[in-house]
Amino acid sequence: MVDKQDVRKDHVDFGDDMDILVRSTGRISVLDQNFGALVGAGIPFFGVGGGILRWVLYQILTDFHAQRGYHIVMTPAVASTQLFAISGHLEFYRENMYIFKIEDHEFAIKPMNCPFHVLLLMNLLQKYREKVPLPFRMFELGQVHRYEISGALYGLLRVREFTQDDAHIFSPSENTEDEILKTVEEMREIYEKVFQIPINAENIKLRLSMSDPDKIGTDYIGTKEQWEEAEEYLRSVAEKIHRKHGIEYFEGRGEAAFYGPKLDMVLNLEDIGEWQLGTVQFDFNLPYRFKLAELVSKIRGEDIPMYMVHRAYLGSIERFIGVYLDYRKGRLPIVLNPVQVLLVGVLSGSEVDKKIRSTITKLRDTLVAAGIRAVSLFVDKVRVGKYVRKIESTVRPSVQVFVGARELESGETGIKYYNLYERQYLQKRERFADVAELAQAVLDVVEELEEPVRELTGKEYRIYEDLSYML
Amino acid sequence: MVDKQDVRKDHVDFGDDMDILVRSTGRISVLDQNFGALVGAGIPFFGVGGGILRWVLYQILTDFHAQRGYHIVMTPAVASTQLFAISGHLEFYRENMYIFKIEDHEFAIKPMNCPFHVLLLMNLLQKYREKVPLPFRMFELGQVHRYEISGALYGLLRVREFTQDDAHIFSPSENTEDEILKTVEEMREIYEKVFQIPINAENIKLRLSMSDPDKIGTDYIGTKEQWEEAEEYLRSVAEKIHRKHGIEYFEGRGEAAFYGPKLDMVLNLEDIGEWQLGTVQFDFNLPYRFKLAELVSKIRGEDIPMYMVHRAYLGSIERFIGVYLDYRKGRLPIVLNPVQVLLVGVLSGSEVDKKIRSTITKLRDTLVAAGIRAVSLFVDKVRVGKYVRKIESTVRPSVQVFVGARELESGETGIKYYNLYERQYLQKRERFADVAELAQAVLDVVEELEEPVRELTGKEYRIYEDLSYML
Repeated sequence: MVDKQDVRKDHVDFGDDMDILVRSTGRISVLDQNFGALVGAGIPFFGVGGGILRWVLYQILTDFHAQRGYHIVMTPAVASTQLFAISGHLEFYRENMYIFKIEDHEFAIKPMNCPFHVLLLMNLLQKYREKVPLPFRMFELGQVHRYEISGALYGLLRVREFTQDDAHIFSPSENTEDEILKTVEEMREIYEKVFQIPINAENIKLRLSMSDPDKIGTDYIGTKEQWEEAEEYLRSVAEKIHRKHGIEYFEGRGEAAFYGPKLDMVLNLEDIGEWQLGTVQFDFNLPYRFKLAELVSKIRGEDIPMYMVHRAYLGSIERFIGVYLDYRKGRLPIVLNPVQVLLVGVLSGSEVDKKIRSTITKLRDTLVAAGIRAVSLFVDKVRVGKYVRKIESTVRPSVQVFVGARELESGETGIKYYNLYERQYLQKRERFADVAELAQAVLDVVEELEEPVRELTGKEYRIYEDLSYML
Repeated sequence: MVDKQDVRKDHVDFGDDMDILVRSTGRISVLDQNFGALVGAGIPFFGVGGGILRWVLYQILTDFHAQRGYHIVMTPAVASTQLFAISGHLEFYRENMYIFKIEDHEFAIKPMNCPFHVLLLMNLLQKYREKVPLPFRMFELGQVHRYEISGALYGLLRVREFTQDDAHIFSPSENTEDEILKTVEEMREIYEKVFQIPINAENIKLRLSMSDPDKIGTDYIGTKEQWEEAEEYLRSVAEKIHRKHGIEYFEGRGEAAFYGPKLDMVLNLEDIGEWQLGTVQFDFNLPYRFKLAELVSKIRGEDIPMYMVHRAYLGSIERFIGVYLDYRKGRLPIVLNPVQVLLVGVLSGSEVDKKIRSTITKLRDTLVAAGIRAVSLFVDKVRVGKYVRKIESTVRPSVQVFVGARELESGETGIKYYNLYERQYLQKRERFADVAELAQAVLDVVEELEEPVRELTGKEYRIYEDLSYML
């Protein structure tokens, strides 16, 4: 059952409830200041719960990409504006960049990771020459800063500092279609397995943003041949995805960026409307500006037609978390949820309370030892309903277990777990002979909820923190 | 045997050899530019190998801290200068900060993480009030930017952008001594288990930087009582460490920072001289400026004498990697080493070469499936010595296995592994009936080398990348 209060809430409220986000309008009484004024407009400020959410997500994304042949890189946060002069950002994007001086040199906080990835590849090519395998894939959780006017800023949706799940694939022309096909399948996996967003013909479309052929050479950089080939690859990938998964695609003529055509995955949802998920884009501009073809041909002794493909599945991770919280009304997959399991001891003021307390405590110790963020609570049975409803609609634990006199006597309890597809708590009745059996039953439920992520990377992302104070 | 060439090399060379660092003087031929000019002076630019090194180190440090009761947080990269006006950085540290404007507001790239951690605690206190457990510990891998004059910049040792393994402990006075004792023990664990730097009476001293009591209230912020108590805690911790581990300590009167006394761990090494490792510092300034005591007393209804303790074990991770590479002449613990295992097929131009190839390939597949960064190579037996010596002194794999006709015939081979304490490759003779047995023997050696880190966090940090191109 969706809490009725949640209907009026948005991700800023959910974020505050779950300590994912520090509310910018939140007042620091003793300083007579708002958090937002101190941190600065458009700078998202994640809470303690948000720290663990981001860290686990970063681990999953990094493992996922490493396992699929991406190299994990970490590039600087700032660079000389000379870098952005070569990339063209300084000329065409300067008003969106944050620039400062050190001694007499101009530096910028990076608005994009791409130029660094090009440099990394150039370094490899010069050092390892023809041994550098192509396609070469690089992945970075790259934090970037871009200007947004203050009037447009809101929560996590429109910010000036954000982190991209950013990757670049440098691919010989002949491998490019395969590479793009893989990215679309990877996107599907991430959405379905990490976020349990169903990707199917009903709710997803692929949008291809193509050139206006008459404007190639004037409005669009790159040759006619490059545009034709790249657009053909995108169309062919979209067609294959259509045949395999039934997902529709449509083309927008003249909608490409000046630097290349792209493919976007667009989700259409009842509640929140259109939501653009991942993007895969050709970039003809940077290789041209950095003279990548020249370097490759120098090293290989022949011209190898090559493409640079940029892709991001979540895009801005901050924004993604914001939209996701809106979409799911604050419900998170268990691996990302700050409070994963709530254990409630229902006290009745009688002799049995002692056993209830020891049962819950042992249960908690077992889960904590397994790295699960479990919290426990003891409430009088007359107050338990009200108390737990409040926690359910604020802290939003993924799993709830109640142990009171009745449960101990009958040797049976219900394990409630939130199902993201059905948008409600479901319940599993479990019989238990002792605490160990009950603990195992709870662990089994947790493992089942973790299963999609385990399928994705083969790993578990358990990291315990004591968040009891959130109750 | 230490390669004689290594004597003249430093961390910039080692970093380049192992693709940990992109050499700033490296020239990009087609652009007629240096990497350093584009990335900017003082901005460390990690290579692909450096990306994996940092990522694994970040995972180890994060797990380690979470398991010891620290909350994992991620705070913004920039903030309004209003935040640094309150913290005092704007007044006393402005010339070391990078400041820029967005619309009419002044922002700064953070020079320190501390003000954000104070804000996070204040947010928790306001939301969860007396339920917030004290001591409260926060850990962040926080990237900061500080000015250094260009003449002083060098490699990873003196930079303008770096990442701290930064934590703050907010502790009631009565718990503070215990908390500090724990930090010194944690420091020891990190150095010994992750980096295999022996921490003992012979090579380590603790340095206590104390106030000049006559200047409290003038040159030093905080009360006489705070200084006396804090210094007493440091002295008592140092004494306990001395009694337990024999490690000496010495006091520097008048050497404290204006905001509080501190304890540093100083390593003294034959080769590189004094090396300041971790630091634990009291901060009387920030709690005062942010009115933390006032907030706590408002919430708890009583004054709770509390300290803010700042600590970093590696300090600047960039600098730490630099000094470590210098100290170890480019040798890294296996978990952090880009290329972990080198498999060499020694070919003799005869029929047996086929079996050699299949053995090495199966060996490699088994290791790769286990997430180990193994690379393989086939060389003619007359060239193998020269070839491998070059790899040993550039790529520096942690483990080496050779399979040739002799090994296949005798069913015996040597597994070479680098021992960081003895500063040389040691060898283990292993008999094997088939490839599976040989693979198991190699896995055993890898596991043994990983063992200290596994002891530390209970986890394995295996993440495969194909780095064959480095050979």
